[in-house]
Amino acid sequence: MEYRIEKDTMGEVKVPADKLWGAQTERSRNNFRIGAPGSMPLEIVYGFAYLKKAAAFTNCELGVLPIEKRDLIAQVCDEILEGKHDDQFPLVIWQTGSGTQSNMNVNEVIANRAHQIAGKTIGEGEKTIQPNDDVNKSQSSNDTFPTGMHIAAYKKILEVTIPGITQLRDTLKKKSEAFKDVVKIGRTHFMDATPLTIGQELSGYVSQLDHGLKALENTLPHLAEIALGGTAVGTGLNTPKGYAKRVSEFIAQFTGLPFVTAENKFEALAAHDAFVETHGALKQIAVSLNKIGNDIRMLASGPRSGIGELIIPANEPGSSIMPGKVNPTQCEALTMVCAQVMGNDVAINVGGMQGHFELNVFKPVMAANLLQSAQLIGDACVSFEEHCAQGIEPNQARITELLNNSLMLVTALNTKIGYYKAAEIANTAHKNGTTLKQEAIALGYVTETEFDEWVKPEDMVGAMK
Amino acid sequence: MEYRIEKDTMGEVKVPADKLWGAQTERSRNNFRIGAPGSMPLEIVYGFAYLKKAAAFTNCELGVLPIEKRDLIAQVCDEILEGKHDDQFPLVIWQTGSGTQSNMNVNEVIANRAHQIAGKTIGEGEKTIQPNDDVNKSQSSNDTFPTGMHIAAYKKILEVTIPGITQLRDTLKKKSEAFKDVVKIGRTHFMDATPLTIGQELSGYVSQLDHGLKALENTLPHLAEIALGGTAVGTGLNTPKGYAKRVSEFIAQFTGLPFVTAENKFEALAAHDAFVETHGALKQIAVSLNKIGNDIRMLASGPRSGIGELIIPANEPGSSIMPGKVNPTQCEALTMVCAQVMGNDVAINVGGMQGHFELNVFKPVMAANLLQSAQLIGDACVSFEEHCAQGIEPNQARITELLNNSLMLVTALNTKIGYYKAAEIANTAHKNGTTLKQEAIALGYVTETEFDEWVKPEDMVGAMK
Amino acid sequence: MEYRIEKDTMGEVKVPADKLWGAQTERSRNNFRIGAPGSMPLEIVYGFAYLKKAAAFTNCELGVLPIEKRDLIAQVCDEILEGKHDDQFPLVIWQTGSGTQSNMNVNEVIANRAHQIAGKTIGEGEKTIQPNDDVNKSQSSNDTFPTGMHIAAYKKILEVTIPGITQLRDTLKKKSEAFKDVVKIGRTHFMDATPLTIGQELSGYVSQLDHGLKALENTLPHLAEIALGGTAVGTGLNTPKGYAKRVSEFIAQFTGLPFVTAENKFEALAAHDAFVETHGALKQIAVSLNKIGNDIRMLASGPRSGIGELIIPANEPGSSIMPGKVNPTQCEALTMVCAQVMGNDVAINVGGMQGHFELNVFKPVMAANLLQSAQLIGDACVSFEEHCAQGIEPNQARITELLNNSLMLVTALNTKIGYYKAAEIANTAHKNGTTLKQEAIALGYVTETEFDEWVKPEDMVGAMK
Amino acid sequence: MEYRIEKDTMGEVKVPADKLWGAQTERSRNNFRIGAPGSMPLEIVYGFAYLKKAAAFTNCELGVLPIEKRDLIAQVCDEILEGKHDDQFPLVIWQTGSGTQSNMNVNEVIANRAHQIAGKTIGEGEKTIQPNDDVNKSQSSNDTFPTGMHIAAYKKILEVTIPGITQLRDTLKKKSEAFKDVVKIGRTHFMDATPLTIGQELSGYVSQLDHGLKALENTLPHLAEIALGGTAVGTGLNTPKGYAKRVSEFIAQFTGLPFVTAENKFEALAAHDAFVETHGALKQIAVSLNKIGNDIRMLASGPRSGIGELIIPANEPGSSIMPGKVNPTQCEALTMVCAQVMGNDVAINVGGMQGHFELNVFKPVMAANLLQSAQLIGDACVSFEEHCAQGIEPNQARITELLNNSLMLVTALNTKIGYYKAAEIANTAHKNGTTLKQEAIALGYVTETEFDEWVKPEDMVGAMK
Repeated sequence: MEYRIEKDTMGEVKVPADKLWGAQTERSRNNFRIGAPGSMPLEIVYGFAYLKKAAAFTNCELGVLPIEKRDLIAQVCDEILEGKHDDQFPLVIWQTGSGTQSNMNVNEVIANRAHQIAGKTIGEGEKTIQPNDDVNKSQSSNDTFPTGMHIAAYKKILEVTIPGITQLRDTLKKKSEAFKDVVKIGRTHFMDATPLTIGQELSGYVSQLDHGLKALENTLPHLAEIALGGTAVGTGLNTPKGYAKRVSEFIAQFTGLPFVTAENKFEALAAHDAFVETHGALKQIAVSLNKIGNDIRMLASGPRSGIGELIIPANEPGSSIMPGKVNPTQCEALTMVCAQVMGNDVAINVGGMQGHFELNVFKPVMAANLLQSAQLIGDACVSFEEHCAQGIEPNQARITELLNNSLMLVTALNTKIGYYKAAEIANTAHKNGTTLKQEAIALGYVTETEFDEWVKPEDMVGAMK
Repeated sequence: MEYRIEKDTMGEVKVPADKLWGAQTERSRNNFRIGAPGSMPLEIVYGFAYLKKAAAFTNCELGVLPIEKRDLIAQVCDEILEGKHDDQFPLVIWQTGSGTQSNMNVNEVIANRAHQIAGKTIGEGEKTIQPNDDVNKSQSSNDTFPTGMHIAAYKKILEVTIPGITQLRDTLKKKSEAFKDVVKIGRTHFMDATPLTIGQELSGYVSQLDHGLKALENTLPHLAEIALGGTAVGTGLNTPKGYAKRVSEFIAQFTGLPFVTAENKFEALAAHDAFVETHGALKQIAVSLNKIGNDIRMLASGPRSGIGELIIPANEPGSSIMPGKVNPTQCEALTMVCAQVMGNDVAINVGGMQGHFELNVFKPVMAANLLQSAQLIGDACVSFEEHCAQGIEPNQARITELLNNSLMLVTALNTKIGYYKAAEIANTAHKNGTTLKQEAIALGYVTETEFDEWVKPEDMVGAMK
Repeated sequence: MEYRIEKDTMGEVKVPADKLWGAQTERSRNNFRIGAPGSMPLEIVYGFAYLKKAAAFTNCELGVLPIEKRDLIAQVCDEILEGKHDDQFPLVIWQTGSGTQSNMNVNEVIANRAHQIAGKTIGEGEKTIQPNDDVNKSQSSNDTFPTGMHIAAYKKILEVTIPGITQLRDTLKKKSEAFKDVVKIGRTHFMDATPLTIGQELSGYVSQLDHGLKALENTLPHLAEIALGGTAVGTGLNTPKGYAKRVSEFIAQFTGLPFVTAENKFEALAAHDAFVETHGALKQIAVSLNKIGNDIRMLASGPRSGIGELIIPANEPGSSIMPGKVNPTQCEALTMVCAQVMGNDVAINVGGMQGHFELNVFKPVMAANLLQSAQLIGDACVSFEEHCAQGIEPNQARITELLNNSLMLVTALNTKIGYYKAAEIANTAHKNGTTLKQEAIALGYVTETEFDEWVKPEDMVGAMK
Repeated sequence: MEYRIEKDTMGEVKVPADKLWGAQTERSRNNFRIGAPGSMPLEIVYGFAYLKKAAAFTNCELGVLPIEKRDLIAQVCDEILEGKHDDQFPLVIWQTGSGTQSNMNVNEVIANRAHQIAGKTIGEGEKTIQPNDDVNKSQSSNDTFPTGMHIAAYKKILEVTIPGITQLRDTLKKKSEAFKDVVKIGRTHFMDATPLTIGQELSGYVSQLDHGLKALENTLPHLAEIALGGTAVGTGLNTPKGYAKRVSEFIAQFTGLPFVTAENKFEALAAHDAFVETHGALKQIAVSLNKIGNDIRMLASGPRSGIGELIIPANEPGSSIMPGKVNPTQCEALTMVCAQVMGNDVAINVGGMQGHFELNVFKPVMAANLLQSAQLIGDACVSFEEHCAQGIEPNQARITELLNNSLMLVTALNTKIGYYKAAEIANTAHKNGTTLKQEAIALGYVTETEFDEWVKPEDMVGAMK
């Protein structure tokens, strides 16, 4: 491989000749061979592209960067956002905990690419723009990396997570309405209970997701606060007057998202409670989705020796050994995602609780976990919606069979004959393997007419309507 | 011990003669000998007292309970709330997951105590009011227990958690203002960095707690939704028309808190995402408090061989073997509480994700963990505030010594001579064990006058002011 | 209340006159009002009693403590172990993280009680033995508290946890053998699969518990290592020669358990990986028990509209509103315990990872969580065994009905006619609602004789026998 | 793109013409667009290659597969293990929870590649070997996927994790010996305590890792148990007699690792407690590494305003804004890995606890998390060893300065003058800002000669030597 020489304050480093990055990126590549290369999420690189461009515009407007440099920086940032340089960011999550080296990776790529755009050859001559003095002007890793994290996370949640959850929520809502009159046996403690409709059952899931979306939205204002302008320790050292507010406005403009400058920059560098908060909501949604996925696979269990009240789509052969088997695979993918998100929550907590003094140095691991959860939840909801929820249908024959068998319809008699006599009827029918009606009459507690009038499943589901 | 005979639908049970509880409570005592007796939190019993009284008033108003029974029930509920019967609730958390037996415990105690109030002897004659048919009228364990959970949790958070956090937040705010001009060295990556003031440092903690309080408050509307009226599976079977809304109004009236009937009762029985959500906020606050507690003990470390910038109160001898030692014990209690809360969060997640069909049967464990976290956070904040935060003082001599030593003041030169030359100055001073000023002049990058003018710690903390 | 004056190095403190504790205990009571009073587990106090006695014997043998003092200390320790002074330990978990104040609580109670035994009045005259110089001789909180933790945990696991798990394991083993010929439908992905016997199904649980017990036993050697002799920082300062080894022998003798002196005292004070390790095994067992509890409640679901293959004991009325309902309440208690243990594991991790320099100051929270898990698992296994597992019976009629319905018996044809044709048979029968045999013959792939010979559920379960 | 037609039991599917996979792989690609493509770890694919080859050899030996088919299968497996087909496995973790589709991916690739090796064109003519009937003979996804998981995990732990940890452990051991005479101040509660040597301090870390390695090794026997031979539900249906034992011997032979057939196949399919157990040990090691990484960065803090007792290598410029800054970046990478591992542990628990009946369907998520943890721990230990631990040196001047300042040397006087008088000396020196010696003499408790003889730091570290 061919190399060129790049320099930083520690001296010279050999860098692959065809790469845009510089000395510090290369040092990091060599010093942190942990896990797969390039694990630092590209979304964070894109977050950096937005903020580097915004910083250049702000620096220029405030008189500390010439317009030519601003435009060169902005042009490279745009190229990065178009995905043209995705292979120039080889660093891993497991680097310095401030993300300094990823900040320098971006600074170096912008500087070298700008040199090319200026018509020069990388590695030859004075750099047209300097990675530290120009691209990183009025910035520190300590405020840029969290800003990049927030941009990446906010965008992901708005573009992937919320739309995915909403798509699933809407389909469940439609199904809930479609099946609002399908009366079925309820189950509590896994045991037969009083009836409800499929529509009511599904409405509980919709309500869970509605509350989850609300909880997620509640966290967005904290996530919209960005650290940029705090520089090294939150004081904003080496920034021109008015910089923090102005740069947040440019970021809001370039991203189209409501970012604002964090009121307190010391928190914004030293703690990432906003990530803890937002991921807390993602975790809550995972808790909900796990319940939903579990219920649906249990309701669809069978086809002959399970519950079998719901029919779900058969998307693929289910078994490599049992012919004709169809499995609730979308439920399985969904609940595996939930398990991952619950784990990620702890990783984020452990990172978030260990900020020290002016800086939390668990930034990359917190960012990567949140981005993964946000992506997986969004994708899994879409997958589940398309390949499972859309196709859910009631198995009416089975539903009717199970409903009519149930002993818990006796509950309708409580208000007529009291809990104790009703219990006696149910217990006797259970012991004798008979029907409620048989025993109710045999025990002399009700007449046949009364029973037929009082024990109607369809009348037992109505109070909440 | 003397016994009397109590009965339920399964038959007769011997109950200690001096106890107010009945057959089902006694069965549960015998069937669930898991952990310490009486672990079910009393707060939940009190929550039940509110809701039983509210149910009695609603049932009476809606014509299904005579006023005499209403008043008897209400009178016992008031006695319970006055703490007169605390020893009548011997059950454990680790019982049925719907809390059925604790519901019955309350029903039985109310029924037996009412019998006494009515001038009769427990165990003699027909019960004046029936535990199931009267006390539990229009109710199920499945909607009462979550209602009791929500009442207990909401009250605890309002009465203990939020006041405790706020007390600490306010003191930190005062300290932040008091020390707003004390310039000190900053630390990032545990390494010397550019300066800031103690006021700024503390303001970050205040901001964390402000955001945490906001996050906690965001969860309260979900927690204010109560399940009562859903009865067995969420359909409201066996409730009179208008019951759910009216009973929530009585609960709001009796507690003075903004409880409302849950819009969707199926969610309210089958999932406890509201608890996941609220505890998520408590966990976020624990993450914040862990950071704060850690920082303060590190800043107060020493007294001679640590950082020693802060002086904290000496409340007790610190060591049984090292004479004269004083330790940051309040920080330790606080961070141990944080560890517990982070564990409790997972217990709550694991419970919350496993609701099945119409019922989540991890109610008691979820409730107990949330109540513990809410209590511990509130108490620990008060303890930390009273015995540590109030007494925090800067160690001015030490602060000045450390500040003046720092090489990172060189950062002020970046905008004057560029990052590379500034780095050379710092590196040379570090290598030679000299001062920045000496090397800056020796290297010929600045004059003495320039150095003195440009490198002023007190000017390096101002941009954010 | 009446008080007397007690003193420590910080001065005078008023202590309730009727209590045996001294100044430092009282300071801690006042300084740490966090959660319920007295939350520090008594098991740890008992652990202290063993070690204080062992230290007295060792100190005496090594010539640094008079025999009269040894005997006074030993006598009080024996009284403590007999439970005579349980009300003298009012401190909470949430105190100093080294447990210094609980160490001093024990030291003070021993000193004051010894004064009484010596025929004097507490608070009058020079103390017969000194809390620090005599009772605490050759000790520090930093090595005594972890020693007390290890003694408490080891005893709890041997006396409660392992016997409880073993009791359940043995009953499941018996049931597995009793039902080894009951062939039933298998279920994978919640869907019908090829058959197995109930005996085989239960044998999987037995194997889980066997592996869990092995895993737990693997952790005991680490837990048997005790810190005593390390004193303040692990160097053993102020201990007589030979002390560490000898004191561990006395502890082993007094407890009857194989305690040894930790090879490395620095680890033993600064980290509690032994607790992390042992609780890791408890957590694994909780994972197993959650699976077992879940399976059993699902297999027993119904009685009419669920799976209903197992019958479990009806221990109490299951519902306050649905008469005659019986629920798998022991499964619920068991799985709630599992949720708690999974949470406790995280609390212990968070504590364990935060040791700093020569001391981990999350000792009490780690100890309390491990002891709770060990108790709850042991108790819940016994409760589950007595009130559920013992009574498990197969519902033969239901089992036969579900087995004969299954389409997955077609798998037996794979090796005769190939996977693809077998799949076609199953799919056709599923679509038409017919039997495998009907379609197998109709499709011309097998004769009736072949089908009857090849598709025998009882032959499909045998390979593993 | 060009396509060919592949078929499975559900019908025809278009597959990219240049790919070796078949219908079921393509269905999965389309049905599970969750997260990044190809996330299923290649290590599991390689695990499959071993087991498919072993199954072919066993099937042949037992007379159910012709030798020509065996050799074709084995040849493709060898190609896969050489990494020649890495791009043929495009599926994701978030698929069916049994990993059925990854099993089929392997089956299909082997079948199609075998067709090529046999000189034919994929998609033309009858397949030379069938994916289900030949490649998957005597297998099910339910026993192959866990077998692949175990092979992958065992290899990873032996090849990456244990060597990495050992490399770090050995270097810490060497450093511990090298610095065994460097006496320094100890710190407990972050506060000055009695002295110890750097060698002793480091020996605690070595002991932690030794115990961690032992704990990890304790889990390997469970991990060595493989499910293969259980087929669909654990009964071994459709396997020839002797298959399970023989196939495990072939796997042991091909991998060179001590795999054995699981004694209980029902556990091996329905639960993955072995993964919970092994990851529990990885988590314990993460807890240890977090402590070690934290300590080292705190001991190296400064360089001028922190503790600064250790000097660690300067590997890269530490700050994009603060010139000359060097940070403990390897500590940061290491502790971020620890945070991830602690999260992964919860993901694995949540998956492990949710096995249902005869199958746990959280296999891929459990496998992926364990493999990630095993890789990251191994890599991070090597990185930390090479770029940090190797270069650790004591800063002797600073160590001496801090040691001589300490007030806790007074502890040496306890056994001479008693705890109370020693405390008075320390308190007075602290109040007056004087030395212990000055105050000890001034208070008249010791003579200068006595002080010099009794208070020698180098004598205070010796008891444990």
